[in-house]
Amino acid sequence: MRRALELAARGPRGTNPQVGCVLLGPDGTTLGEGWHRGAGTPHAEVAALADARERGADVRGATAVVTLEPCDHTGRTGPCSVALLEAGVARAVIAVPDPNPVAAGGADRLRSAGVDVVTGVLAHEGARVLGPWLAAVRRGWPFVTLKIATTLDGRVAALDGTSRWITSDVARQHAHAHRAQVGAVVVGTGTALVDDPSLTARTGDGSLVEEQPLRVVVGQRDVPPGARLRSPGGELVQVRTHDPARVLAVLHEREVRHVLVEGGPTLAAAFLAAGLVDEVHAYVAPVLLGAGTAAIGDLGITTISDAVRLVPTEVLPLGPDVLVVATPEHPPRGTADPIARTSTEKES
Amino acid sequence: MRRALELAARGPRGTNPQVGCVLLGPDGTTLGEGWHRGAGTPHAEVAALADARERGADVRGATAVVTLEPCDHTGRTGPCSVALLEAGVARAVIAVPDPNPVAAGGADRLRSAGVDVVTGVLAHEGARVLGPWLAAVRRGWPFVTLKIATTLDGRVAALDGTSRWITSDVARQHAHAHRAQVGAVVVGTGTALVDDPSLTARTGDGSLVEEQPLRVVVGQRDVPPGARLRSPGGELVQVRTHDPARVLAVLHEREVRHVLVEGGPTLAAAFLAAGLVDEVHAYVAPVLLGAGTAAIGDLGITTISDAVRLVPTEVLPLGPDVLVVATPEHPPRGTADPIARTSTEKES
Ligand SMILES: NC(=O)c1ccc[n+]([C@@H]2O[C@H](COP(=O)([O-])OP(=O)(O)OC[C@H]3O[C@@H](n4cnc5c(N)ncnc54)[C@H](OP(=O)(O)O)[C@@H]3O)[C@@H](O)[C@H]2O)c1
Ligand SMILES: NC(=O)c1ccc[n+]([C@@H]2O[C@H](COP(=O)([O-])OP(=O)(O)OC[C@H]3O[C@@H](n4cnc5c(N)ncnc54)[C@H](OP(=O)(O)O)[C@@H]3O)[C@@H](O)[C@H]2O)c1
Repeated sequence: MRRALELAARGPRGTNPQVGCVLLGPDGTTLGEGWHRGAGTPHAEVAALADARERGADVRGATAVVTLEPCDHTGRTGPCSVALLEAGVARAVIAVPDPNPVAAGGADRLRSAGVDVVTGVLAHEGARVLGPWLAAVRRGWPFVTLKIATTLDGRVAALDGTSRWITSDVARQHAHAHRAQVGAVVVGTGTALVDDPSLTARTGDGSLVEEQPLRVVVGQRDVPPGARLRSPGGELVQVRTHDPARVLAVLHEREVRHVLVEGGPTLAAAFLAAGLVDEVHAYVAPVLLGAGTAAIGDLGITTISDAVRLVPTEVLPLGPDVLVVATPEHPPRGTADPIARTSTEKES
Repeated sequence: MRRALELAARGPRGTNPQVGCVLLGPDGTTLGEGWHRGAGTPHAEVAALADARERGADVRGATAVVTLEPCDHTGRTGPCSVALLEAGVARAVIAVPDPNPVAAGGADRLRSAGVDVVTGVLAHEGARVLGPWLAAVRRGWPFVTLKIATTLDGRVAALDGTSRWITSDVARQHAHAHRAQVGAVVVGTGTALVDDPSLTARTGDGSLVEEQPLRVVVGQRDVPPGARLRSPGGELVQVRTHDPARVLAVLHEREVRHVLVEGGPTLAAAFLAAGLVDEVHAYVAPVLLGAGTAAIGDLGITTISDAVRLVPTEVLPLGPDVLVVATPEHPPRGTADPIARTSTEKES
């Protein structure tokens, strides 16, 4: 299962879940491996079966170790449960059950066809890899990561608005790698106009990665014709609202499961105040400015006991900088669906 | 030498250098160990000789491994060079030469008495332990550590002035331990009046550690009679100036070698702007405020290329918080003596 989870992590994080699958022979040898490479491509199980075929391995009687319950419906690809049955797999070991009501039922179908099914193996680790996707599908709105890149004294830009660069190459490259794992990158019109960012996911050498996240601008003002946001990259979507929940509704409708809010301070504060931030990625650079734009706009907090407290899950030195990953201590306000759902679950 | 350095680190950091000494027999066995426990107490070499005597060990022909060149003058204690000679030590291994013109010369005296002297062993590590003291003595003004305790968005207090507590118990205890290693803790009158801090060095259970740093308040306004700064602890010193160099001159005169500036933002900015900060200790808590007092007051910086860039030397998770230790990329402005020196070196 650890291997299957490793494979899962290779896939892009976006509309579809990250899933990995390993096919094991009765003697424990690996017959085939596969992972899900994104929407429209074969699911992990099907990829693993193809891999086994290519290796000339006989999968009859094999065990399928898979991080997410095999789907049981025909979407852009056929049901994985059927593919496994047809291949003659005898046993299935599953980490996480499928929370998607349309796709679930794979384990049951396998069981009733006589396959020996074990679920919940390394379920915790599985949920970690699948976390944002699972959360988004379960509750019906996207998982939100808020990214900030600040000086040690909490500034995201100098007095004249310049902010290139506060953090180091290493930290920026890390942030780019993260963009490649989300379905949409979101900024306010302020950032779009002042920074003229491209909001693309790029590799170390500056080239665009294959799958680009949507580029989303929130606010009334127009993005000028010559803006870098219109250069090659993900589709540009403008949401003319100040309501973060509305932004998430639009993106959920677009089947985005993981949203990266990259600021600026006004938009960041709006998402925090609405209790819609699941996770904060703070890149802190050993730089002092003494003045300039503060990382987070007004949250209406006046005294220390009302501060937003986060629980750090990771502290990662990145060159001279430090990345602090943290989640709000209290789950986002309003456990009820905060957005006007306009769609039912689409196939995954 | 590693052992001697470990012993050195046990001593208090203040007026006197942190020194450790190990006496080794000709066969390499340890005969005695000692370290300097602070002003007025025996130097490390003398402590090690006493330890050997207590163990009943014969130190004639022994090797003295010592982190700092043995002193050669009579201060509150006799010269260590003479003590080592009288004990019949045959060899001395030294990490760092004594930069203090009054105390230096110990190695020479040992050599001319026929002792085999090796210097520069683990000199780099030795300088690290002795760093602040060495720097202060060499240049004639104290080593300055600036401490800040901020939220992830760079606030040191909420809008209403409250700041208890931003950081966790673990981080605050770490900061207390650091107070015990410096000669003086410095704040501006703003912090003294708003926070009513005690500025004492306390152990985990809240009791005062034996050696307390001076408590220094900078600014014109008076510290009220009932202030915690007047409670048991280090001597309270008010320096009625806005000039950080003047503060350092006063403290140097008082034989303080390491100063901890604990804020607030106005005083911190004044020390930074004057180029008088050698090291920053930033305790960053995973907390967001969105408003409140910024960690560092105005530095006159308007654009990102003029930012104060630091080189981190340590990133230490402390409970939920992170301590970033960093030094300014460019040495403090004015390598020439920035303070009006009013004293010559006093004995150490
Ligand atoms: N270092 C970093 O990580 C980082 C990241 C991003 C930005 N920045 C810096 O941040 C600065 C820009 O700050 P900013 O606050 O203007 O940027 P912003 O948050 O990107 O944009 C603010 C604008 O977005 C619209 N908006 C969207 N939702 C809103 C809401 N709930 N409430 C109010 N307005 C909303 C408004 O414009 P409309 O009038 O058009 O509706 C508002 O003026 C720049 O200097 C940039 O360099 C730094
Ligand atoms: N979280 C933390 O790490 C931390 C630490 C300390 C303070 N704080 C917070 O900081 C706030 C206080 O801020 P603050 O800036 O007023 O504190 P401050 O820097 O301690 O004090 C400023 C005052 O010191 C005097 N001063 C000394 N040197 C000066 C200079 N070079 N230029 C101008 N004035 C100088 C002035 O008062 P005179 O008129 O008396 O001369 C000035 O008003 C409080 O809310 C406190 O809670 C937080």
